[in-house]
Amino acid sequence: MNTVSATEQQQDSTRARMQAMGRAARAAARLMARADTGTKNAALNAIANELDRQRPQLAAANAKDMQHGRDSGLDAALLDRLELTDARIDGMIEGLNQVADLPDPVGEISDLKYRPSGIQLGKMRVPLGVIGIIYESRPNVTIDAASLCLKSGNATILRGGKEALHSNGAIAACITAGLKQAGLPEAAVQVVETTDRAAVGAMITMSEYVDVIVPRGGKGLIERISNDARVPVIKHLDGICHVYIDDRADREKAFNIALNAKTHRYGVCNAMETLLVAEGIANEVLPRLAAAYSEKGVELRGCEKTRAIVPDAQPASDEDWVTEYLAPVLSIRIVADMDAAMDHIAQYSSGHTESIVTEDYTRARRFLAEVDSSSVMVNASTRFADGFEYGLGAEIGISTDKIHARGPVGLEGLTSQKWIVFGDGQIRE
Amino acid sequence: MNTVSATEQQQDSTRARMQAMGRAARAAARLMARADTGTKNAALNAIANELDRQRPQLAAANAKDMQHGRDSGLDAALLDRLELTDARIDGMIEGLNQVADLPDPVGEISDLKYRPSGIQLGKMRVPLGVIGIIYESRPNVTIDAASLCLKSGNATILRGGKEALHSNGAIAACITAGLKQAGLPEAAVQVVETTDRAAVGAMITMSEYVDVIVPRGGKGLIERISNDARVPVIKHLDGICHVYIDDRADREKAFNIALNAKTHRYGVCNAMETLLVAEGIANEVLPRLAAAYSEKGVELRGCEKTRAIVPDAQPASDEDWVTEYLAPVLSIRIVADMDAAMDHIAQYSSGHTESIVTEDYTRARRFLAEVDSSSVMVNASTRFADGFEYGLGAEIGISTDKIHARGPVGLEGLTSQKWIVFGDGQIRE
Repeated sequence: MNTVSATEQQQDSTRARMQAMGRAARAAARLMARADTGTKNAALNAIANELDRQRPQLAAANAKDMQHGRDSGLDAALLDRLELTDARIDGMIEGLNQVADLPDPVGEISDLKYRPSGIQLGKMRVPLGVIGIIYESRPNVTIDAASLCLKSGNATILRGGKEALHSNGAIAACITAGLKQAGLPEAAVQVVETTDRAAVGAMITMSEYVDVIVPRGGKGLIERISNDARVPVIKHLDGICHVYIDDRADREKAFNIALNAKTHRYGVCNAMETLLVAEGIANEVLPRLAAAYSEKGVELRGCEKTRAIVPDAQPASDEDWVTEYLAPVLSIRIVADMDAAMDHIAQYSSGHTESIVTEDYTRARRFLAEVDSSSVMVNASTRFADGFEYGLGAEIGISTDKIHARGPVGLEGLTSQKWIVFGDGQIRE
Repeated sequence: MNTVSATEQQQDSTRARMQAMGRAARAAARLMARADTGTKNAALNAIANELDRQRPQLAAANAKDMQHGRDSGLDAALLDRLELTDARIDGMIEGLNQVADLPDPVGEISDLKYRPSGIQLGKMRVPLGVIGIIYESRPNVTIDAASLCLKSGNATILRGGKEALHSNGAIAACITAGLKQAGLPEAAVQVVETTDRAAVGAMITMSEYVDVIVPRGGKGLIERISNDARVPVIKHLDGICHVYIDDRADREKAFNIALNAKTHRYGVCNAMETLLVAEGIANEVLPRLAAAYSEKGVELRGCEKTRAIVPDAQPASDEDWVTEYLAPVLSIRIVADMDAAMDHIAQYSSGHTESIVTEDYTRARRFLAEVDSSSVMVNASTRFADGFEYGLGAEIGISTDKIHARGPVGLEGLTSQKWIVFGDGQIRE
């Protein structure tokens, strides 16, 4: 037997195993869809208790992954994300209990009204069915994703990074135990325990068993999955967020928002990456802002007009306008007016979050209506674009798609609405 | 130059033209998104007037397509769908004026509330952007689709069947004239005027210019497009709809609904294709129903238990449970109870529309909650699953997807909701 056919055999067997998981998930999804709120909450609390009880097992499994990571030369940042400290386990437990406290979206009936035919028509919120989550090294995503999918009545297939294989397996054991204690099907949450990449290929193409894929990770992973998927994908690509300081901005608000949006945290998708400033106010706001950024160690890259006011700024290239730095770097562009700012945003934004700082009523209304991003703000920091800040309780990700869920995706984004009709024997004439 | 490279050159040039259309559509979409309701309605009315004024041109163009269709041997049914009679032009004009009368979904703000941080958070309904419609021979779809996309503030690229090329071109001329009269960009509605199939390939993969594809036509077309698309697809595959007559059904309602759902119209996606009957009531309802179906010329195919009660029924094969007849044919299965009916539906339904006939409160509630289809009904004919009956005014299709729009898709399904934030200078602490 040569190597190629051995690989092919392995791929076939992985595919067969994924199909079996899919079938089990589809069957579990029917039971999950009719599970009542109390049972789902009991499962979430039971999983939390299991995590607490099985800390030694979690530590042992994580130690294996950490050792393997060090042996294979993972860098310090990845090792840090991989580590399951006691504080992180506390965080997972707290997250589970918080999700249990959220209102159950399933079964909500809205817009119930009579039609001229006599039928009473409405919409009912129902689970999507089977959700596939593909993510990278952080093992706590296993719990975040599982808890949201469980509460929203979905079955889940989770495929974590190969670096976290043992940790994810130990977490899966806690989930299975919790589901069992609550009387829910164990296949409601399944963790893929193979590192074979054919598992991902199978997951994203078996549309008979999987209703939606949520990839979480770097842009490369998400683009690869989106290109190959035959199942709908809820995805988040870049977070190239803009703040536009209008010439009718309140200077104090402009200073605070532009500083906060960049420097509150650097490695997050809702941080500002490009600051747009109206020509008429640039001289007043940029010097003070530049000094504040410098003090925080933020590297500035500006257009020519910016550099005339902020001589320390490096020249910005076209590449800068489409770069998500996720770092203490900021590009600055001076624009003629709000229309020019909106043109820049339409061309370069990733559609995540944009904010205008202005006291002008008509401009605020226009910016809100015309900027085509998942969150559009007036006089607020882009850093608010977040599931917790929006009151969703938790988020499975931030969608930069326009279809289905947009922006922070919480429980509601994991459901759909079907039409329901109450009749008394009505027929079409 | 050999044939292959000539074909390749043609494909390259088609792709380049589609890209140019995409760029123009993207630019037009920004203008359409901010067009006010009055302007959009004026355009719809102006297009209606143009259709009325240009009846001679429409007739001449349609005559060319009809002649070409006859010459190339199109069958009578296809020729009928292709024909633009005066009555059909009246229908298009009426449709345009009806869409003008519908409320504008764009800009609707909902769920506006203050968060603990002080920001005021809400959702705003906005157009999707650029919508690609791919459809088969009926030229009136050009107007249906264009009017709904226009009213919902989207730009549209329409690609009709090659049989209707001249008719679609003549309709496009009316649309362009109407858009111009209202001061809207002509690229807001573009009709692809090439029969090169590479045009479809380009449309469904240029995700930078097209936000969603809506294919309308046979299952083969829709499956092909879904498989190859790199852009989200709102699709409708089968309509394998079920009526389940429970043993606690009102006999009169059961008879009327089961007869209406099958025989009101045969070639429609919301017609019943399989009748499920509880064992305990089959003897009471099936003979009368079978007689009524026979009188209407409906061919019956039944399970063994059905054939014991209805001897004229042919035996139903497994293939029958997954067949959308779109014809006077009905499969009938006797089941033990509602759970068995729901199992059958879970296994064989296409997720379009199912109805239960029962007077039992708890069963009605369970059927509504647990059956996972885009429309689920109690004591009503499946024939009500329709955009007009649901009060959407018109529909661009009926989605059997779970993501985004589900069931009849009207104006709202052609929009998305973005988050909006009103602040007073708030920053994250």
